[in-house]
Amino acid sequence: MHAEIIAVGTEILLGQIVNTNATFVAKRLADMGIDVYFESVVGDNESRLLKEIKKADSRSDLVILIGGLGPTKDDLTKQTVAKFLGKRLIEDSKAMNKIVRYYHETGKTMTENNKLQALFIEDSIALKNETGFAVGNYFKNANGTDFLLLPGPPSEMKPMFVHQAQPILQEAYFNDHLLFSRVLRFFGIGESLLVTKLEDLIDGQTNPTIAPYAKTSEVTLRLTASSKSEDEAVNLLDQLELEIAKRVGEFMYGYGDDNSLVAVIVEQLKKKKLTISAAESLTAGEFQSTLGSISGVSEVFLGGVVTYSNKAKEQLLNVSHDTLLNKGAVSEETAKEMATSVRTKLGTDIGISFTGVAGPTELEGQPVGTVWIGLSIKGKETTAKLYHFSSNRYLVRERAVLSGLDYIRKSL
Amino acid sequence: MHAEIIAVGTEILLGQIVNTNATFVAKRLADMGIDVYFESVVGDNESRLLKEIKKADSRSDLVILIGGLGPTKDDLTKQTVAKFLGKRLIEDSKAMNKIVRYYHETGKTMTENNKLQALFIEDSIALKNETGFAVGNYFKNANGTDFLLLPGPPSEMKPMFVHQAQPILQEAYFNDHLLFSRVLRFFGIGESLLVTKLEDLIDGQTNPTIAPYAKTSEVTLRLTASSKSEDEAVNLLDQLELEIAKRVGEFMYGYGDDNSLVAVIVEQLKKKKLTISAAESLTAGEFQSTLGSISGVSEVFLGGVVTYSNKAKEQLLNVSHDTLLNKGAVSEETAKEMATSVRTKLGTDIGISFTGVAGPTELEGQPVGTVWIGLSIKGKETTAKLYHFSSNRYLVRERAVLSGLDYIRKSL
Repeated sequence: MHAEIIAVGTEILLGQIVNTNATFVAKRLADMGIDVYFESVVGDNESRLLKEIKKADSRSDLVILIGGLGPTKDDLTKQTVAKFLGKRLIEDSKAMNKIVRYYHETGKTMTENNKLQALFIEDSIALKNETGFAVGNYFKNANGTDFLLLPGPPSEMKPMFVHQAQPILQEAYFNDHLLFSRVLRFFGIGESLLVTKLEDLIDGQTNPTIAPYAKTSEVTLRLTASSKSEDEAVNLLDQLELEIAKRVGEFMYGYGDDNSLVAVIVEQLKKKKLTISAAESLTAGEFQSTLGSISGVSEVFLGGVVTYSNKAKEQLLNVSHDTLLNKGAVSEETAKEMATSVRTKLGTDIGISFTGVAGPTELEGQPVGTVWIGLSIKGKETTAKLYHFSSNRYLVRERAVLSGLDYIRKSL
Repeated sequence: MHAEIIAVGTEILLGQIVNTNATFVAKRLADMGIDVYFESVVGDNESRLLKEIKKADSRSDLVILIGGLGPTKDDLTKQTVAKFLGKRLIEDSKAMNKIVRYYHETGKTMTENNKLQALFIEDSIALKNETGFAVGNYFKNANGTDFLLLPGPPSEMKPMFVHQAQPILQEAYFNDHLLFSRVLRFFGIGESLLVTKLEDLIDGQTNPTIAPYAKTSEVTLRLTASSKSEDEAVNLLDQLELEIAKRVGEFMYGYGDDNSLVAVIVEQLKKKKLTISAAESLTAGEFQSTLGSISGVSEVFLGGVVTYSNKAKEQLLNVSHDTLLNKGAVSEETAKEMATSVRTKLGTDIGISFTGVAGPTELEGQPVGTVWIGLSIKGKETTAKLYHFSSNRYLVRERAVLSGLDYIRKSL
């Protein structure tokens, strides 16, 4: 089973947009066990597109075309594939109704070409577009290559792939079993160490499979079980997760593709009804801004200070002049005073502080990447931890923020 | 002159990394006036790679291969192209010395395969790798297709393309004239309006050419002049910029590819020796964190507060209880009090404040996207401006931060 992805769009060849669609689809195909041998990009040009389709047809079992389903004269994908297959285009009445209704309701003028978006290749399955107008197509070729056509805008392509296309592909190529995935998320352990600790599991994987992905500052493992029933899959996944947790459980903070350390922490704070405030020096507001990215965080996050300068540390937090002078701004004592002070000032349950050297040059004789994080929890003794991060300004700040979140997670 | 880009790497086909290299190269080729008709991705597999090379050779004048120049057994690009061309691989002594020196200095053990990175195709030009070990290649084919080989890591590929390959391509294909580019940066005007205002210039463009690029919240115009001398090019670019400035000059904030509104503002503050502090509600520290991303900002940025809750507004900024009760947290009065208070508390020349509705639900009867920005400048009357942004939480915050920077720019 070999698939191939063709992205259609001159704007990709001009370097105006990045072809993230191919990445999205390729990753999900890999998870399903479908090999992608080729990806290509071709402009909005019928003869070049037709040649690409012929070549793909000759070497792949499934050809996925992304883009070119819209209403403009540049959009040629459906028409070209239909021509190649010797098929007509016919109308999807639901999609057509949606288009007509939209123009009726908004009072805008519908031009003839808008209707093109509701056409699909005869003898294929029309795929509903939840977030736009252009329908997708899945054409199952009894004696040849299959075709899947998806719209170009990622906001339309992604839901169509996940909700419409993926179940169809599953049914078409793996109808004797079902796939179930579980994503485990890790922080504080690098990909290579994680993989080493799980080496025998990964090398010996058959069912479930284990796929590690590394991001800048975290690693995820996608476990995928193939089975006849959901119960059986859950059981397989539970067993494997248990074995993984035995070895690296302390680094695991959550589940799911659409999750993050900050989302998990905010959820826990809400559940435990704990409020939080922060005092930031080197991170300059990035920790609080990260909290602020979570919708509904106002339930637990009250605010804080950004004490970038020593003056601000004294003025806004009453960090003692003595401490700054004798211990330094980047010190355990300053971190603790900052955390305690912001917590007291705002009357929260938790106060966290960040002070360190973001670079480009060392500070108070301490190298770039040195960071103290202070944590003050109501009723407990204030603590602080020393970290040494890589020497890139951007990464030092990002890792400091994530380490702060992890510090809270381990204290809860 | 048709070029084609082939990225080599199984990790792209697995969806593990995004093919940003192709975007980077395609954009620069477009700026040079070289058309890219095809892009493709092929895995680390010799026979499939060889087929792709043959096909590309048959249809393009220049084939650019990216990736597969490293030391592992997966890295096959150089070997495969050499085989296709019927050429041997020979050693680049400078590159070899660099490799040997590295292993000598670090005390690490050099394995034989590390030397592979210093090999290049005979009768081609070896391209120096400033940030890594694998040399690139440019093979000019007297009676056929030319080949350019670049390393896969973007940190190696980008400087090699810009510093080594681009001048060679310029010389090889445009030796009768030189290209000079100037990038103009705009904020506060959308791409479509900008393009409309410059429609006649864009439609009639010959030399210089005008290429607009839209990012999330800003637009850039790349002007490219082709001429026999730099003086002539500068003159052409100056004339065009003047005409553009007449029409949309108020939205133009700076120049250059590697620039941003925040970098321009920090530079101006440094030049004018003006210090700044900030009080943020809905942006939750994102404005200050954006300042903090600029190296050396501590010269002008002292700190500030994040007053996410009303309690924090009273506690940290002494915003009057009356104002919050009668005018609301999202109001002109609160914005002004916040800006003035943070400026006074930290004794800075400028104080800026952000208060608004990030969503997901409306606040105090005001819709998501409503934002007040307050600006207090020493010796001037404090002002505030009302903005209405799109209703996506992420964008509301980002646009608020950028609008705040633009507000400062216009006041300086």
